[in-house]
Amino acid sequence: MQGVFVTLEGVDGSGKTTQAALLTQALEDAGREVVRLREPGGTQISEQIRHILLDPQNDEMCVEAELLLYEASRAQLTRQVIEPALAAGKVVVCDRYYDSTYAYQAGGRGLDEALVRQANALGSCGRVPDATIVFDLDPHVGWGRAIANGADRMEAAGLALQERVRAAYLRLAAEEPDRVRTVDADGTIDEVNARLCAALADVLPELGA
Amino acid sequence: MQGVFVTLEGVDGSGKTTQAALLTQALEDAGREVVRLREPGGTQISEQIRHILLDPQNDEMCVEAELLLYEASRAQLTRQVIEPALAAGKVVVCDRYYDSTYAYQAGGRGLDEALVRQANALGSCGRVPDATIVFDLDPHVGWGRAIANGADRMEAAGLALQERVRAAYLRLAAEEPDRVRTVDADGTIDEVNARLCAALADVLPELGA
Repeated sequence: MQGVFVTLEGVDGSGKTTQAALLTQALEDAGREVVRLREPGGTQISEQIRHILLDPQNDEMCVEAELLLYEASRAQLTRQVIEPALAAGKVVVCDRYYDSTYAYQAGGRGLDEALVRQANALGSCGRVPDATIVFDLDPHVGWGRAIANGADRMEAAGLALQERVRAAYLRLAAEEPDRVRTVDADGTIDEVNARLCAALADVLPELGA
Repeated sequence: MQGVFVTLEGVDGSGKTTQAALLTQALEDAGREVVRLREPGGTQISEQIRHILLDPQNDEMCVEAELLLYEASRAQLTRQVIEPALAAGKVVVCDRYYDSTYAYQAGGRGLDEALVRQANALGSCGRVPDATIVFDLDPHVGWGRAIANGADRMEAAGLALQERVRAAYLRLAAEEPDRVRTVDADGTIDEVNARLCAALADVLPELGA
């Protein structure tokens, strides 16, 4: 069986994690071996890097170091876990991969696009997902949901950032339509799951069975 | 006073560290403020990265992750320490910088040259040293010295690696003769120091005073 590399993208709250679990279950029910991953992390070395990235004491971290640490973690995950799994015919479902770096660092935070693309090429060791799903959601909807759930009011700056991240994801989908597929994330879990399965039917025909 | 960024390069045993100390002393005696650094390290974040790089338990580290970790450490050192020091008119003397990555990863270990150069541009945040000294030594001389000092016989593979690293340094000196200056490291400490001061006289006229 041929390995398939699927990455899931979108802003926080777009339902990625729930859908990753459902997708994994559906594929396992169809007899596929699935490796489910989440960035940054997934190897001993990548977790050590994650620790540096998330340590609140490291608030002096410059944007370039942050970018390169994400890429280092990604390179290790790619070489140590993703590539062997694909070579063994497994399905790899990865919650965030290099498109997150593009959307958040170049789109959200305004880092130079060419620089982020170069870094992404290095960190992914040239590996390109077979299919990438962008769970697309109007940030105002996510905002409304959060408020309905009793969350604190998100800051306007946060909302503007989410809008830039979303726009960056939509640019990627326009640039690479074969790989990057947009899934409307506004709906029930079952509705979104049905859209996800349809969007992956060409690379994972098991999902239509 | 104008900041000056000097990097010291060469294989281990070429006398870099001894010469860095002498250079720092001479500049301080001439009234300059000097920041002496060593890669990888030099900031809290860079030291955390150094720890990951040097941890013997991390023997599964892939070459790409290693490269990107060096670059992340370098980016943090550049933004947090080197750039502010130069802006304040100090002399920065750095024991190894991006030319080491080129010499060891591309030259010594055979990583793709273009990839290493891209990574170096990212990790140095575009910063270029005002002058780079390559302490050049025939690896056989270093080998002879080591044996005379009672060290174990170096493996032939180690010697071949040193030769590739040396050749890479000499290529850089030929490519960028204004920046990269070769200093013959075969001689007494005083002899090599005199050559070093002469090689830096244009960017640090204090050394000739």
